Amino acid sequence: MEHDINLPTVHAEMAAAFARYELALTGNDIATLDELFWHSEHAIRYGATENLHGHAAIQAFRKARPAAGLARSLRHTVITTYGHDFATANTQFSREGSSAIGRQSQTWLRTAQGWRIVAAHVSLIEAPAEAHHAA
Amino acid sequence: MEHDINLPTVHAEMAAAFARYELALTGNDIATLDELFWHSEHAIRYGATENLHGHAAIQAFRKARPAAGLARSLRHTVITTYGHDFATANTQFSREGSSAIGRQSQTWLRTAQGWRIVAAHVSLIEAPAEAHHAA
Repeated sequence: MEHDINLPTVHAEMAAAFARYELALTGNDIATLDELFWHSEHAIRYGATENLHGHAAIQAFRKARPAAGLARSLRHTVITTYGHDFATANTQFSREGSSAIGRQSQTWLRTAQGWRIVAAHVSLIEAPAEAHHAA
Repeated sequence: MEHDINLPTVHAEMAAAFARYELALTGNDIATLDELFWHSEHAIRYGATENLHGHAAIQAFRKARPAAGLARSLRHTVITTYGHDFATANTQFSREGSSAIGRQSQTWLRTAQGWRIVAAHVSLIEAPAEAHHAA
């Protein structure tokens, strides 16, 4: 029941998977986005305006999404790994021309096919109260 | 790298932990809320209006939060367990007098002290597009 937190090799793997997802998202690389979400009816993605249950629903959303305006800047990204097979990735993001602060939370699982997102939550807020690394 | 999904005993444990957290949240039982969040600088909670990094920041937020108006109804709750020590809990919620749909995502880890939330994300949206259990 004790899990090694942020083992360097595991953390590096997850950071690479996270970066790959980000590149696919901003480039609207739907094949990679589909690949990186867990192929399961249990996969969940709460998006900025939609609640999607199951890989098929997530995949349908991707296909229908406009491909423009996806570029964004990340900040306060925190990737944490638990043992060898589980991880969380949380980040804030902003888009040019918008004052909204986005938040993206992902839970990742190492499967036989590689690291996959089993659950994700994306939302936008205005003027967030910050308490980053509070003492 | 293969993990048993939703083992009945593990799922039942997590459902109990999730229910305990919900009772503490709606009853503003701060001691239990503090207990159930991972006591780590790595703990993260993105709230409806705030981004909190570290258990201390989460704890400070709880203490400052108004105790009234916390009652809510859940729907589409999905708890998924991965092996014996890792879980996600996602739910939608609504509050009387509000048309907003809340979404709450939690990632849980079994620690030596018991199941703890390592990351959470809460957000509100209006009139969500639904794709629940889409084919």
